[in-house]
Amino acid sequence: MRKTIVKALCLLSLAVAGISCSQAVSNQDAALANIMNRKSVRSFTGQKLSDEQITTLLKAAMAAPTAMNYQPWCFVVINDESKIAAMFGDGRGADMYLKAGAVIVVCGETTMKRSRNGETSEMPNRFWFEDCSAATENLLLAAEAMGLGAVWTGCWPIENRCEKIASELGLPENVMPLAVVPVGYPAGDDQPKDKWKPEKVHYNQW
Amino acid sequence: MRKTIVKALCLLSLAVAGISCSQAVSNQDAALANIMNRKSVRSFTGQKLSDEQITTLLKAAMAAPTAMNYQPWCFVVINDESKIAAMFGDGRGADMYLKAGAVIVVCGETTMKRSRNGETSEMPNRFWFEDCSAATENLLLAAEAMGLGAVWTGCWPIENRCEKIASELGLPENVMPLAVVPVGYPAGDDQPKDKWKPEKVHYNQW
Repeated sequence: MRKTIVKALCLLSLAVAGISCSQAVSNQDAALANIMNRKSVRSFTGQKLSDEQITTLLKAAMAAPTAMNYQPWCFVVINDESKIAAMFGDGRGADMYLKAGAVIVVCGETTMKRSRNGETSEMPNRFWFEDCSAATENLLLAAEAMGLGAVWTGCWPIENRCEKIASELGLPENVMPLAVVPVGYPAGDDQPKDKWKPEKVHYNQW
Repeated sequence: MRKTIVKALCLLSLAVAGISCSQAVSNQDAALANIMNRKSVRSFTGQKLSDEQITTLLKAAMAAPTAMNYQPWCFVVINDESKIAAMFGDGRGADMYLKAGAVIVVCGETTMKRSRNGETSEMPNRFWFEDCSAATENLLLAAEAMGLGAVWTGCWPIENRCEKIASELGLPENVMPLAVVPVGYPAGDDQPKDKWKPEKVHYNQW
């Protein structure tokens, strides 16, 4: 009996050590695996996100690079249930927004300040949507890493959607909503798509 | 004696299981840390990237989400030294390109096919630059995860830069270069910027 217990414990130790080793290796690859495992999640349990979770998501978003380090992004977190219902309750895919843990609207300043000869003026920021797209991707990847799910629903440059969101959130004139991202606890079993297509790659010349 | 062995093995199991658990946690955090640690690397050793490294970077790029799953991206990998020299050898920051392990140009199809009544036509893809920006961010994050460095140098919508790159790579008329990304082995000690600004976050209303 004791021998059996000893044997069982030995096997258990080895098994657990094996898992531990493979995790040490995959720890290095975890960031790559996270990129490959991200999927669009449109079905949520309804559980709300904590303030800490929202802060982690936004810190990740603000870690993206921006042209000239201008950081033109700003974020509106919608976590008031009645506000979510008022904004998205009767639109397409309403359930996705209503059951999300929060809806994060990634916005960008479309103008930037320029100082010249002691005077400050506004000029267009030609890169705001690229910077804010990179931030949105970071947000989606952070959600995946945290065991949450998210989906990028497009806003800019669809004029009527931008106008509606901007008006409902009271955005300043030079702030444009780029993407609306419901984030939450996945309710389904969404899987990542394999989109690798070697024919999309050219070497040195088209 | 046997009791001691059993106890020792029990403790070993628990210890190893403990390590395993903490690694499972840090595995989850590894992806977040990678997002926070990504930095713009502009100084490289000159060591070339392997085909396998380039494939991993591009697989990560193609794992990004795209509007309507259209996947409008395409990539030109420039790893021929004379081609890099011809394209970037006398421009701004020439050394950054010349010493990179490869220069990857992230491009996008600006039009998409539409089938209607048995006829196929082309229409503008209004989301190509957002999709390709997300792919570029994935590429940068994959480089960080692989111990490499990279930097997003802007191309679109700077017309003269787009025209020059498109002409030198022989891009089709509906393919636009979005970003030029030198990737390689970091030569310096670039550090990530802390860009977290809570004042960029609004709740439920601006």
